[in-house]
Amino acid sequence: MSDAEPIFDVAHLSHAELLTPRFDQSVRFFKDLMGLYETGRDDTSVYLRGYEESHHHSLRLTRADEPGLGHIGLRTTSRAALDRRVAEIEAMGAGIGWVDDATGYGPAYEYRSPDGHRMRIFWEIERPEVAKDQRSRLLNRPMKRPGIGVPVRRLDHLNIMCSDVAPVRDFLIRSTGARLREAVVADAGPVIGAWLSHNNINHDLALTMDMTGASGRLHHVAFYYGVPQHLNDMADLLRENEIAIEAGPGRHGITQGSFLYCFEPGGNRIELFGDEGYLIFEPDWQPVIWPERDLALGLSYYGAELPLTGAAIGTPPRPIPDPAEIMARIQGKA
Amino acid sequence: MSDAEPIFDVAHLSHAELLTPRFDQSVRFFKDLMGLYETGRDDTSVYLRGYEESHHHSLRLTRADEPGLGHIGLRTTSRAALDRRVAEIEAMGAGIGWVDDATGYGPAYEYRSPDGHRMRIFWEIERPEVAKDQRSRLLNRPMKRPGIGVPVRRLDHLNIMCSDVAPVRDFLIRSTGARLREAVVADAGPVIGAWLSHNNINHDLALTMDMTGASGRLHHVAFYYGVPQHLNDMADLLRENEIAIEAGPGRHGITQGSFLYCFEPGGNRIELFGDEGYLIFEPDWQPVIWPERDLALGLSYYGAELPLTGAAIGTPPRPIPDPAEIMARIQGKA
Amino acid sequence: MSDAEPIFDVAHLSHAELLTPRFDQSVRFFKDLMGLYETGRDDTSVYLRGYEESHHHSLRLTRADEPGLGHIGLRTTSRAALDRRVAEIEAMGAGIGWVDDATGYGPAYEYRSPDGHRMRIFWEIERPEVAKDQRSRLLNRPMKRPGIGVPVRRLDHLNIMCSDVAPVRDFLIRSTGARLREAVVADAGPVIGAWLSHNNINHDLALTMDMTGASGRLHHVAFYYGVPQHLNDMADLLRENEIAIEAGPGRHGITQGSFLYCFEPGGNRIELFGDEGYLIFEPDWQPVIWPERDLALGLSYYGAELPLTGAAIGTPPRPIPDPAEIMARIQGKA
Amino acid sequence: MSDAEPIFDVAHLSHAELLTPRFDQSVRFFKDLMGLYETGRDDTSVYLRGYEESHHHSLRLTRADEPGLGHIGLRTTSRAALDRRVAEIEAMGAGIGWVDDATGYGPAYEYRSPDGHRMRIFWEIERPEVAKDQRSRLLNRPMKRPGIGVPVRRLDHLNIMCSDVAPVRDFLIRSTGARLREAVVADAGPVIGAWLSHNNINHDLALTMDMTGASGRLHHVAFYYGVPQHLNDMADLLRENEIAIEAGPGRHGITQGSFLYCFEPGGNRIELFGDEGYLIFEPDWQPVIWPERDLALGLSYYGAELPLTGAAIGTPPRPIPDPAEIMARIQGKA
Repeated sequence: MSDAEPIFDVAHLSHAELLTPRFDQSVRFFKDLMGLYETGRDDTSVYLRGYEESHHHSLRLTRADEPGLGHIGLRTTSRAALDRRVAEIEAMGAGIGWVDDATGYGPAYEYRSPDGHRMRIFWEIERPEVAKDQRSRLLNRPMKRPGIGVPVRRLDHLNIMCSDVAPVRDFLIRSTGARLREAVVADAGPVIGAWLSHNNINHDLALTMDMTGASGRLHHVAFYYGVPQHLNDMADLLRENEIAIEAGPGRHGITQGSFLYCFEPGGNRIELFGDEGYLIFEPDWQPVIWPERDLALGLSYYGAELPLTGAAIGTPPRPIPDPAEIMARIQGKA
Repeated sequence: MSDAEPIFDVAHLSHAELLTPRFDQSVRFFKDLMGLYETGRDDTSVYLRGYEESHHHSLRLTRADEPGLGHIGLRTTSRAALDRRVAEIEAMGAGIGWVDDATGYGPAYEYRSPDGHRMRIFWEIERPEVAKDQRSRLLNRPMKRPGIGVPVRRLDHLNIMCSDVAPVRDFLIRSTGARLREAVVADAGPVIGAWLSHNNINHDLALTMDMTGASGRLHHVAFYYGVPQHLNDMADLLRENEIAIEAGPGRHGITQGSFLYCFEPGGNRIELFGDEGYLIFEPDWQPVIWPERDLALGLSYYGAELPLTGAAIGTPPRPIPDPAEIMARIQGKA
Repeated sequence: MSDAEPIFDVAHLSHAELLTPRFDQSVRFFKDLMGLYETGRDDTSVYLRGYEESHHHSLRLTRADEPGLGHIGLRTTSRAALDRRVAEIEAMGAGIGWVDDATGYGPAYEYRSPDGHRMRIFWEIERPEVAKDQRSRLLNRPMKRPGIGVPVRRLDHLNIMCSDVAPVRDFLIRSTGARLREAVVADAGPVIGAWLSHNNINHDLALTMDMTGASGRLHHVAFYYGVPQHLNDMADLLRENEIAIEAGPGRHGITQGSFLYCFEPGGNRIELFGDEGYLIFEPDWQPVIWPERDLALGLSYYGAELPLTGAAIGTPPRPIPDPAEIMARIQGKA
Repeated sequence: MSDAEPIFDVAHLSHAELLTPRFDQSVRFFKDLMGLYETGRDDTSVYLRGYEESHHHSLRLTRADEPGLGHIGLRTTSRAALDRRVAEIEAMGAGIGWVDDATGYGPAYEYRSPDGHRMRIFWEIERPEVAKDQRSRLLNRPMKRPGIGVPVRRLDHLNIMCSDVAPVRDFLIRSTGARLREAVVADAGPVIGAWLSHNNINHDLALTMDMTGASGRLHHVAFYYGVPQHLNDMADLLRENEIAIEAGPGRHGITQGSFLYCFEPGGNRIELFGDEGYLIFEPDWQPVIWPERDLALGLSYYGAELPLTGAAIGTPPRPIPDPAEIMARIQGKA
């Protein structure tokens, strides 16, 4: 066994910023169907969180011309850990600079992944006061479980698309100590997908090869239920409310998570996560590498099938290439 | 926010050793109803693990005259982390010494909690070869999901009884960096229960005031399903097989875990854990302290009631005190 | 096997009328937490139904000084079946007369059980037009699954309390062709409980010995989910909204139904029914008779315990007798 | 509302006989994965039932050169009802004659559907004695819930393929009083599918247009869980044991049932039914007719997609026609 010590500098994926061209409809989707609480609002954005989250927000929804990812927010495990990570990011030449006026957290250091995804890392967070009528009967629950929609509990993970997965995977490992948990590698060499995490869940940041060849796009943001039945409940509610379901409920082979994919009114793909698949407690975890021939089982162990074209659909939208082009990309010829 | 850095030296509760005076029946219980795999056997013990565990064993069952806890096994996050923890334990005067010949892990350092519970800490583990017909179709699952009983996935946590909770709580925090997540504190001062963890689950080691005043006893060992429905399935199967159910299914307020308590044939209490309640990602988690008046809700948020006499029942068995004596103990007068 | 032919004249329990002294709070409970739709309102009553019900209402809530049962509504399988049942009821001397102006159904024949419960039987029903925005995407679902509370699907059954169970049991069998499915009979002879049905569910009308000795009271009205997990969801929501949970979730041995009991703001006990236990397809079903010694298992197979004092709590409220008086009643000495 | 009285002469689908060319493997599938009990065996057949069934068997497995349906067994609600149904069947010219030596039931009258499916109808059944160690702790459960596989509770329904659905639908309505619950009708006229039942479940016999044009084939036999989560459990177990999953888990729009389709080793399609969708209590039920444009939603409301080619796969096997031929058949041109 290796004598190296793991890096424990990042606590978790703290928030995601989503851009939406249909702001009001997106806000209603997240509040009325997903059961998120609004914790703040300004000219450009609404701030939201699940009933099991105590920091200011896990989702920032921002008006924009096109849907897509604004930025990713990571929280460190200490002030010193933040300093260490910023030093590393600067040494890698990926830094942009400090943001001091963000709502709900900060100071934060902003930087970019090799594929262009904007990221922020910070230590300090705000924990807003909860109004008396929103307080739960449970002392360990930040807010009352809402009686609306099929309420999610918290943000779970983010899946970002990459023109080339391998450099982003390596960047996350070095910049913030993410650990590689699983990956799908094509026979010809290209990495089709990679799942990494900074803690015991099996992925907080996942990477998908963008079959259009674009850079910096978003595949999906995932929210957590913890009870597989809630995916059935949510699928029913989405159908009744004419929200497009892309696939699911079903269970991935990769990560073993149970999934339901839909598109919020702004166009971004949202995953509802029924349970976490499995947790990883082994500090010397050996990444599970799925070969190309197991891709179908890896994408869907049971339930809905997940076609590879799903890896061409992201935000902002781009034309979907034909199957031949996708195969060429997997074979490293694109 | 504090500038201190958390300790990340212990990865997880790796195994528990249970003593049983009805060895064969206990083994059958864990294999035929709980669906554990046998991974080894010697003159005194059988070694078992769940189908999602890749290390040698999470449960060692050992022949004995009385039921109870043999020892607790913790795995560190690195070799250096083991050295740091052993140095700290020795500095605290709690050490016993190195064990070099344990089956499945080691070298391990053995020590004792202030209440007498035997503990071992180690870095190296064995990952036994899996026979071909026991291999799962999933590359990320160590063994095939068994088609027997209602199979648990892995060891979850251990709850140990203490003549006095506070010193054991402090010992775990200092010796291995456990973080206090929740506690119940009596109005008169004594700590009735404490829940700690070394990672993102909200408790891997819990402490219960022993209402008999005894030291070093076991309250329960808990195994994990991750799907609340499986508690219903298991309750049905236990009833059909005349295994005594103590309480459940239900959901704790404290930790929010969904529970089912039964007694294995050897007499030890086993908890089946339907889901993990909530995970903790906050490095600066503020412990949730439940006052005495919330004890009933804290023990049972819904489902089965959990009477306080449950805190007098442990292994090895002792006479259950009358309610007045229990109240005196809570009030710090016993 | 008997050569007798079963009676198939009653289709199902069509509705229940509940009296409430806290009308507005009761209405809010049924609409906001139980997810019932309002289909009508007049000076005294609100009419409600679940999203899987196509007739006018399954619950009529009526203003009153005290909580309790208004009346029970049974629908026949044909117009001729109604004539046959009315003839039988009149022959038994239990009839009151025709009601021609009821909202949502009728003409209805009103009569009384030997214990005084008011009952109505009818063939014709109204099926109200559904507003476009309440129509489900499913052609076989009368109304959209609501995104509020944890919505029940339909009325399931009614449990009424009897000063003496046996004559009411016999009355239901003769008057409407109810079939006895299960019963609990005390060693000394009295029937403690009886479960009957007119169709394939194992009970649409259940009878409980009233431990106070009163006549004509209501034990509970039950609504149906069909998914056991929804009992957990509802228990959580009830706790958050400070609705008193009496017991559950748990599973009865008798009928095998999964239960959650709470009290709506008006004081009536409401059961949420997670699944139907088992369906009965055998026309020559032999009633299952539980002896007194199996009463505890029969009341609760797993999950919450159900104390016998629950059989003293009904509406309208009456003082709860002491345990000795309850035992005397069971022994036929009260 | 119509003044006609419904026919209540058939109680339920009592059993199905399946033919299998891989007898021993089929028996193991039903016993080890589906948890059926063996209640009898002779030279040609094994008789099986679920743990909630009290009659002799619900599944007869018979050795044969090809997979397929042996016969369908319906039980009447009385002896007189049997006489009435036989008279009607004979009047329709569909009768074959009496079978007096069947194992577990009889005398039975055998007849044929217009498409050639063999059917038997009878009143008398055997209820075999249950060995002491197989008796359940529940008095209302015929046999102990087994601790093997993911045990089904009972037979649910049968789906048979028809070269022409309409005449078989009409035959079932007239011969045994089946009621039409739902149907899919192509724009050009042909009936693509029909769902009928003799009791409160929404279908015990379903009919599928055979896209190959063959007569008398079997689409699937369905067994019942009553808990949607069990479909997930079974899907996992099937994958681990290399049993081919065709589709699911998912939920049909038509009937709203939750499904999982697999093929038993003999080649017959088996459906696992997670819950019954909805029950029908209305004696004057108006059949729900799905138009061709809603076919996709009707086949799959959420979860797995169900392609129309599934309606070409049945037993005994036949070559699957190309899509153009299937479309021609739907348009009434084949």
